[in-house]
Amino acid sequence: MPAPVHAATATHVRAGRRGRVTRALPEELPVAMVYGGSTQAVMMATPSDLEDFAVGFSLTEGIVTHASQIERLEVMTHPKGVEAQMWLGEDRAEALSARRRFMAGPVGCGLCGIDSLDEAVRALPDLHGVGPVLDAAQIAGATEDLRGWQPLHDQTRAVHAAGFLVPGRGIVLAREDVGRHNALDKLIGAMVRQGLDAGQGAFVLTSRVSVEMVQKCAMAGGAVLIAVSAPTAHALRLAEGSGITLAAFARGEGFDLFSHPERLRAEVSDVA
Amino acid sequence: MPAPVHAATATHVRAGRRGRVTRALPEELPVAMVYGGSTQAVMMATPSDLEDFAVGFSLTEGIVTHASQIERLEVMTHPKGVEAQMWLGEDRAEALSARRRFMAGPVGCGLCGIDSLDEAVRALPDLHGVGPVLDAAQIAGATEDLRGWQPLHDQTRAVHAAGFLVPGRGIVLAREDVGRHNALDKLIGAMVRQGLDAGQGAFVLTSRVSVEMVQKCAMAGGAVLIAVSAPTAHALRLAEGSGITLAAFARGEGFDLFSHPERLRAEVSDVA
Repeated sequence: MPAPVHAATATHVRAGRRGRVTRALPEELPVAMVYGGSTQAVMMATPSDLEDFAVGFSLTEGIVTHASQIERLEVMTHPKGVEAQMWLGEDRAEALSARRRFMAGPVGCGLCGIDSLDEAVRALPDLHGVGPVLDAAQIAGATEDLRGWQPLHDQTRAVHAAGFLVPGRGIVLAREDVGRHNALDKLIGAMVRQGLDAGQGAFVLTSRVSVEMVQKCAMAGGAVLIAVSAPTAHALRLAEGSGITLAAFARGEGFDLFSHPERLRAEVSDVA
Repeated sequence: MPAPVHAATATHVRAGRRGRVTRALPEELPVAMVYGGSTQAVMMATPSDLEDFAVGFSLTEGIVTHASQIERLEVMTHPKGVEAQMWLGEDRAEALSARRRFMAGPVGCGLCGIDSLDEAVRALPDLHGVGPVLDAAQIAGATEDLRGWQPLHDQTRAVHAAGFLVPGRGIVLAREDVGRHNALDKLIGAMVRQGLDAGQGAFVLTSRVSVEMVQKCAMAGGAVLIAVSAPTAHALRLAEGSGITLAAFARGEGFDLFSHPERLRAEVSDVA
């Protein structure tokens, strides 16, 4: 497996002077998700925790509904990239074949893009009423807590992280990747493999919150998303609709709570 | 067309107090690229400058080699998203059909992912020896110059921008999107539609430099990439191989030059 970080030399130019510096750069490689010998998707990803990535991707993309449906998983390195080869139980393999036959229509050779537009934003699990209640200080401090779990970012200043926060325990697990979706998929896969229930805590992200991040959170059964940056308007509508508490701009001193504030413990005083 | 920015109310929590705030959030919608009635790709994108996006995507993905091959372009809004409907000249339409038949094999139902891994990193144009020579101050100041071209980011603090810098003129054009790839595609489309030659200047990015950003730069004929953040190791290898000058961590006071320093004017003094 290629290393997730590579040293590169550069010419550092500053105030009219130049010198040689060595920088640690994150690697990214094509990673193919292969089920029963057929490739479902190829993504550029950082080559670390790829078993977690394969399990998380399979769950959040709805290819399996439980990790045990992946009967075998093997990560193989090729000159051009990496394959995560998975074999599913018979039921799920048939469901995936049926889905592929359906997809081959609208995406590849349909009469127009309307069916594909429907596919892009799928129905999500309903998370109203589940999940933890959090203190304001836990939410505000979550992204600083996550900073202690970012060894690749410490080296490269250029990879995203997704962490899982449990009330009273802080961040208990985190994963990194150049891609923010991949970091979250890796985390979700790692949680499932370690038996951590997404409904018991909050996902914490170093990134913005786009539609796909809310989708992956919901598919994993997570009811709380805390992010250092902003949500998109569409992501907020999805979070609102599926019952997810979305806290953004979480940066130590405070945060903005955009949806489902019922999971914020009412210890803070209201101001006009 | 839906607005690119939406107002949302949030509960702002800070130092044990809470109050209501209104935030401007960027919109993202599924945008389908449709050629001759068949959907090639669906991406989440900010609904602005979508004609530019369609032209830029078509060029950087190699669907056309010249904008004039798009004989008609119509952007249609649907309840679930937006379609960019394009009709190509006969030659390109046939080439696209042939490519689809080829792609339907390895991606959808090949025996394994190896062919798909090859597809993920395609051969790029050779840009050795073309493009401008830049002063250190132009490179260092490029991302600050771009700040003046980011109206959506000023409102939302959450969208990426790609700009085009011409030596002696500064940034002459820029586009924004929640997705960094989309911002670059929009910019490239806008440049082609306005007759700006990518070989005469530098692309300036608010983001990291991943493989896809180098691919799009090269496909557009650009020989210089300047970014506020880091490249990946893989992106650097592609830039090196295709003759692209890659400057990263460009933040006013200085920058790191990772590849092809021959395009940096030699006015700066060397230090040990």
